[in-house]
Amino acid sequence: MSYEHILTDLDDDGILTVTLHRPEAMNAWTMTMTKELVDMVEKADANDDVRAVIVTGSGERAFCAGADLSSGVETFQSALMEDTDGLHKADGSVNWSHPGIRDTAGLFVLKVYNSVKPYIGAINGVAVGVGVTMTLPMDIRIASDNARFGLVFSRRGIVPEGCSAWFLPRLVGISKALEWCYKGDVFPVQEALDGGLINEVVPQDQLLNRAKEIARSFTSESAQVSIALTRQMMWKMMAADHPMEAHKIDSRAVYARGQQSDAKEGIDSFLEKRPAVYTDKPSEHMPEFYPWWDEPDYG
Amino acid sequence: MSYEHILTDLDDDGILTVTLHRPEAMNAWTMTMTKELVDMVEKADANDDVRAVIVTGSGERAFCAGADLSSGVETFQSALMEDTDGLHKADGSVNWSHPGIRDTAGLFVLKVYNSVKPYIGAINGVAVGVGVTMTLPMDIRIASDNARFGLVFSRRGIVPEGCSAWFLPRLVGISKALEWCYKGDVFPVQEALDGGLINEVVPQDQLLNRAKEIARSFTSESAQVSIALTRQMMWKMMAADHPMEAHKIDSRAVYARGQQSDAKEGIDSFLEKRPAVYTDKPSEHMPEFYPWWDEPDYG
Amino acid sequence: MSYEHILTDLDDDGILTVTLHRPEAMNAWTMTMTKELVDMVEKADANDDVRAVIVTGSGERAFCAGADLSSGVETFQSALMEDTDGLHKADGSVNWSHPGIRDTAGLFVLKVYNSVKPYIGAINGVAVGVGVTMTLPMDIRIASDNARFGLVFSRRGIVPEGCSAWFLPRLVGISKALEWCYKGDVFPVQEALDGGLINEVVPQDQLLNRAKEIARSFTSESAQVSIALTRQMMWKMMAADHPMEAHKIDSRAVYARGQQSDAKEGIDSFLEKRPAVYTDKPSEHMPEFYPWWDEPDYG
Repeated sequence: MSYEHILTDLDDDGILTVTLHRPEAMNAWTMTMTKELVDMVEKADANDDVRAVIVTGSGERAFCAGADLSSGVETFQSALMEDTDGLHKADGSVNWSHPGIRDTAGLFVLKVYNSVKPYIGAINGVAVGVGVTMTLPMDIRIASDNARFGLVFSRRGIVPEGCSAWFLPRLVGISKALEWCYKGDVFPVQEALDGGLINEVVPQDQLLNRAKEIARSFTSESAQVSIALTRQMMWKMMAADHPMEAHKIDSRAVYARGQQSDAKEGIDSFLEKRPAVYTDKPSEHMPEFYPWWDEPDYG
Repeated sequence: MSYEHILTDLDDDGILTVTLHRPEAMNAWTMTMTKELVDMVEKADANDDVRAVIVTGSGERAFCAGADLSSGVETFQSALMEDTDGLHKADGSVNWSHPGIRDTAGLFVLKVYNSVKPYIGAINGVAVGVGVTMTLPMDIRIASDNARFGLVFSRRGIVPEGCSAWFLPRLVGISKALEWCYKGDVFPVQEALDGGLINEVVPQDQLLNRAKEIARSFTSESAQVSIALTRQMMWKMMAADHPMEAHKIDSRAVYARGQQSDAKEGIDSFLEKRPAVYTDKPSEHMPEFYPWWDEPDYG
Repeated sequence: MSYEHILTDLDDDGILTVTLHRPEAMNAWTMTMTKELVDMVEKADANDDVRAVIVTGSGERAFCAGADLSSGVETFQSALMEDTDGLHKADGSVNWSHPGIRDTAGLFVLKVYNSVKPYIGAINGVAVGVGVTMTLPMDIRIASDNARFGLVFSRRGIVPEGCSAWFLPRLVGISKALEWCYKGDVFPVQEALDGGLINEVVPQDQLLNRAKEIARSFTSESAQVSIALTRQMMWKMMAADHPMEAHKIDSRAVYARGQQSDAKEGIDSFLEKRPAVYTDKPSEHMPEFYPWWDEPDYG
């Protein structure tokens, strides 16, 4: 993987560290960064050597300062991509379901939401706007002690993006979500911790090590296909109307997994009191019925 | 606005203070109060001069002592309004989807749920039954140090109303919601704070000032149309099945706002390091696609 | 009620204590236990003398050590019950919606989810796998100071079951749910408390007394039919798309209850400042429109 606005590094433990890398611009969000991050998620999902993904920022000052505003209001029209045919109807009004009207943060967020790898946000400094919302579909967020956060959309005359209206109330509750978005201020890391936006605060020089330690705790003893299924089951069922939806899928998944070599190894290693060695791979051994959902269309 | 069971006061900062005002009856809930509160929400929504709404109670003793029980069990039949034609079927059984069977708290709660103004509950004393449930669709709840709370429905032989079965588990978790409703006791303000029912506790003589301070923190630097959209996006998407629903709306909302004067002002003021002056108004500048949902029918 | 793998005891206060009883096997989960627990829920629901249910484990060491793994990987094929006709299609592939592919924990969990009695989990020692997930549809979970918890599925090569993908993120948040399931470790009671999995920690010799005290606080002053309706309203509406769903049901329920003797007693006892004596019974006095939902099919 070779990119322009992000860096990637895969270590021997299968932990992929992705670094937002525009240090001259506080790692501000661009269309290039969006496309590269989307490509990264797809490649990581397809690569069995990637066991977990950490997303962090370059430098000691910023994780991501938000959308790059240097091109003015066109920033928000950057949502409008290549093909604008049909954007306006015959009477000049906007066709609001035109496929080109796409918030860029949401393109990345929806990819992470559908990923089968654990994601850890390692927020190494200021995170503003999309710098916050891009981390919400990740499973764990930790931050350095100098981090600050801002859901500043209402102070810039726009609205929360990156599907954050869906994620944020689920993570921190509707009251805290609205308070932060109404105020639009930049707040300290302790407020983010108290409000449940992040899982822990770490001295900056230990942030990446701590993120890797968490990642290894997920991957070192657990079966990779089990992790992949667990991630999709939890995120999808959190929004299902009835626990019967979970019962359908977990019944089938336990039965399917029970016939694969990992389950036998799980029991054998338990009875023999030795570490398990799992060999099933997401690229080959996801159950036949996966994915069990119909992906909704945009538009 | 001139009412019988509530008082209203709009200050120069655009903060509307609404006071439940039946001091002789601990501000107990009546049909008159219901109709006046519903009317108040509608008028506040239509009035661009109203930037935020605070709801509090008259006096130092009670916020709202619940439904006025002075008329006995007919209180619960007050849900049955003017027109009872068709309430009973030919065989004498009740037509349960008759439009007259309406819990009064729910009429207010659903109005607040659909409002585009921030709502702050300033609970200045005892809040029992509907005195609690009427505050649940508000964005922030603060309480005075002498406040007490009771979800006493099961001790009165009825059930939780005001759509609280929808709101309460989302605000405090299903376990705490059921514990309070099963017990039906009146509990102290600290328990409400610990359980997540309220955001903070304030000495009684500072309660209204603190509520106004919070309201101003929402309105002083944020664009009014952004606030209005944010409120509806968060509350509606909290219950949406898939983040794609949020992606559709925030994509369109960022694009729509990006063409309005507020977004330009938001970027200009940021680059010029000066306070923003927003001019878009909810009465005129909500995006064409708003509201994006079909309002469900009762019945 | 006479069972093989569970014990039951109904006290004079109407509190049914159910004890997982395979002390020689750390109360490990079996098909027999599943069937007995399902039968117990049905009988408790039908019995007005049962006011609340406590579920605990035999002995001082374990609540439930998870699925009994003594039969190896067939444990996970125990999901496959009596009738396997049609399990495989003509081409040999699995018919994934076959009614025999049923996770056993889910059979119990869905019964508790639909129950009209308050459930309290009294976790008296180690709870692993289904030992945790079987408690998630209960309303309150308390644990003894020697309890430990493990959502160990990924370390055994399988996936979380018992509808836990639906319940766990709603109880502890998606981030903690995934952290525990990814890691798959066995963690101490304090971590369970801090993460919101349990409501309180109690010295082991006081656990059952405390559980009964909580149960009595639910039943001693509250109307039984009100409790029954409250439980179903809260659990069902927590997953409803719109508060209008709650408004429909609570409007009808308040109106229906308002015509029953309990509501009159509720008001009379309040006005007369005396304890209420409620006489309506779930077996006879649930409203006509109950249940108001269509139960989803498996398959």
